[in-house]
Amino acid sequence: MINSAIYFDQETDFDTIYAKVAAEKEKGESGYYDLPIHQDALVAEIEAYKKNNLDILYGCENIVVVGIGGSSLGAKAIHNALKFRKSSKRMLFLESSDPLKIDMELGKISIDKSVFIIISKSGSTIETISLFKYILAQFGAVTPKEMAKRLILITDKGSKLEQLGLDNDVQTFTIDANVGGRFSVLSAVGLVPLALAGYDIATLLAGARMLHDEFFVAKNDRHGLVKKASFLATHAETLSNNVLFTYTSLLKDFNAWYVQLWGESLGKVDRQGNRRGLTPIGIIGPVDQHSFLQLIMEGPRDKSVTFIKIQHSLESIKIPDIKLKGLEGCDFVNGESFETLINRQCDSTLESLRSVDVPTDIIELETLDESNMGYIIYYFELLTSLVGAAFDINTYDQPGVEVGKRILKEKFNAG
Amino acid sequence: MINSAIYFDQETDFDTIYAKVAAEKEKGESGYYDLPIHQDALVAEIEAYKKNNLDILYGCENIVVVGIGGSSLGAKAIHNALKFRKSSKRMLFLESSDPLKIDMELGKISIDKSVFIIISKSGSTIETISLFKYILAQFGAVTPKEMAKRLILITDKGSKLEQLGLDNDVQTFTIDANVGGRFSVLSAVGLVPLALAGYDIATLLAGARMLHDEFFVAKNDRHGLVKKASFLATHAETLSNNVLFTYTSLLKDFNAWYVQLWGESLGKVDRQGNRRGLTPIGIIGPVDQHSFLQLIMEGPRDKSVTFIKIQHSLESIKIPDIKLKGLEGCDFVNGESFETLINRQCDSTLESLRSVDVPTDIIELETLDESNMGYIIYYFELLTSLVGAAFDINTYDQPGVEVGKRILKEKFNAG
Repeated sequence: MINSAIYFDQETDFDTIYAKVAAEKEKGESGYYDLPIHQDALVAEIEAYKKNNLDILYGCENIVVVGIGGSSLGAKAIHNALKFRKSSKRMLFLESSDPLKIDMELGKISIDKSVFIIISKSGSTIETISLFKYILAQFGAVTPKEMAKRLILITDKGSKLEQLGLDNDVQTFTIDANVGGRFSVLSAVGLVPLALAGYDIATLLAGARMLHDEFFVAKNDRHGLVKKASFLATHAETLSNNVLFTYTSLLKDFNAWYVQLWGESLGKVDRQGNRRGLTPIGIIGPVDQHSFLQLIMEGPRDKSVTFIKIQHSLESIKIPDIKLKGLEGCDFVNGESFETLINRQCDSTLESLRSVDVPTDIIELETLDESNMGYIIYYFELLTSLVGAAFDINTYDQPGVEVGKRILKEKFNAG
Repeated sequence: MINSAIYFDQETDFDTIYAKVAAEKEKGESGYYDLPIHQDALVAEIEAYKKNNLDILYGCENIVVVGIGGSSLGAKAIHNALKFRKSSKRMLFLESSDPLKIDMELGKISIDKSVFIIISKSGSTIETISLFKYILAQFGAVTPKEMAKRLILITDKGSKLEQLGLDNDVQTFTIDANVGGRFSVLSAVGLVPLALAGYDIATLLAGARMLHDEFFVAKNDRHGLVKKASFLATHAETLSNNVLFTYTSLLKDFNAWYVQLWGESLGKVDRQGNRRGLTPIGIIGPVDQHSFLQLIMEGPRDKSVTFIKIQHSLESIKIPDIKLKGLEGCDFVNGESFETLINRQCDSTLESLRSVDVPTDIIELETLDESNMGYIIYYFELLTSLVGAAFDINTYDQPGVEVGKRILKEKFNAG
């Protein structure tokens, strides 16, 4: 169960903004909208793969995801939010051309007790394909066929990587072209690795579907998503940063997923030629009460802040009733659970920001589980689309990253 | 060796800004300035502690730092930057009231093969003292004396925590009151845990001293720190975000240290009553080329970007010369090292930002070692002081975080 509250006012033209995203969904301009409702075939395909590969999966200890950006952030966010509840397999994420990181990650595992999932939407992401080659070499292979049983490919329908998979008898799952990388966690991109690691992907999808049905079927916007999107878009020039202040370390990678979703979707030149965007900032409470809070309180008034709080963390350790001489000022929490402390810290920080009129809202998850993760992922995807609609931008492309790719190629070609 | 380049112009009143920080140093308004040159006594004290506690330290596998914000971020940044080079002891950082995090971290270790370093500048940080009590309870202790040999306290001279240490025969190191938490990594706060973990703190200090001597003794600002600070302060209203784009995952926690230093020091009401500040954003290349770069390229022009690049990572793994059918477009990096790839990605991103006139600069470290880490820490501390001087704020206090602390206490007192 997820509840929310918004502590700012905004006059909103609900119908206009709603109609824009409903039209995007209807026309298939972005395919992520329907992922919670149209994936029975994929779930069955994943189940079939598991059944047919028991020999490999039985002794498999590690699910290694090779992908960067939208190809890894979503599964990583869900895994790191839930791994404490579930006896999942170990998941590793190879997502950088950083040689020390590659060495460190692969150093942790036996490659012959691992399945490698190569994810590239275009099929030609330079980091991912280079890492793919490196993994082939680790197995002494020069073609994917030689390690086909330990490989899975995930890529756009019709890409050259899909063809490579077919030619080499490698299990290949595809993504629809209209599902953008950063909106792809509920497609094969997220579902395949999470299912193999042991998570309940049907419940994850059902969680997302709850919000889908509330919003698009019942047309009940109980979280005020349209109001929030309208507020953020209307005030984007003054409130140019949106801070996600998450009161659990387990959502650190969820924050990173949000930063990509928000930054790459909303940082755009709009249809009138104006630069639009909201800078996403992910911080963790209470740690960042000791780092970033001062800036929000007393620095320029250019931030809105969204809090995320977990009502029940499933861990009930308490602060012992020990009195230390001279430190009696800290005894007011004695005998309380750390959960109570962190949640009251969240409430106190929220109140302190409200007291100085920083625009805030809060999202409360009853607990961290597949259902709530599916729901909150869909919440942020939908919010991103709504802000994009209010901005009048193309939320789903990323033209600004092409220049660097071209320059990189030139540098290598020049030697 | 550290080199740098700045790709923007700025007319600078060098002498005025320089004089302000030189005066702060001279008058002891902040004590961090002199940490690289006045710590022989502390280094000797740490050595003596090590000599006198060989029985405990010999079998000690884990150095557990209990501290939040400035009490942990610095040592964590240095440890995670260097642990791949050094056969250090394992370091853990308990820095949150998050119950799942506490449970997860302590679950990794045998407490009787660990030394716990409790760090609180004020001596009464609620998270830190609560965790301290929790650790006492793990040992079945109700007073620090009962586990004195496994404890170290680090706190302000004259605090009640220092007195508690003296009363209970616990080794206690102190910090001078004029060394702020976020500027304290080169004091006992960082040096004690790093020395016990096996790092060469003399070289760390010597690295910082190199810049200290260049800047304050030779008065040679070869990195253009005054120009950079002046540029950032002058353009703070339009370029309200400073992005640190670090091309190595190993500096992820360095980015977090920078975010605290920058955010909490510079987010202030100035002496004329104006809100000042620059929002710090730490991102990692190449991962965030696939997330944040689009926003910098095409979103609002409110960001300056500082790149950090490591010339030699000490890891020379290569991209194998494997050709995959259909993916020939990725073969241009075949046979090259991943180090070459990541560094050219850094250069390409920098060039693409320059091509659209985003203000950029770059800091190049020859490699990650104690000397360079000391140097770059002092670089960012000094830069922060210089921007603060240009802003005409008090760089060293944090009045904005007190409201939330008061509200928290009220919530508990109300039951």
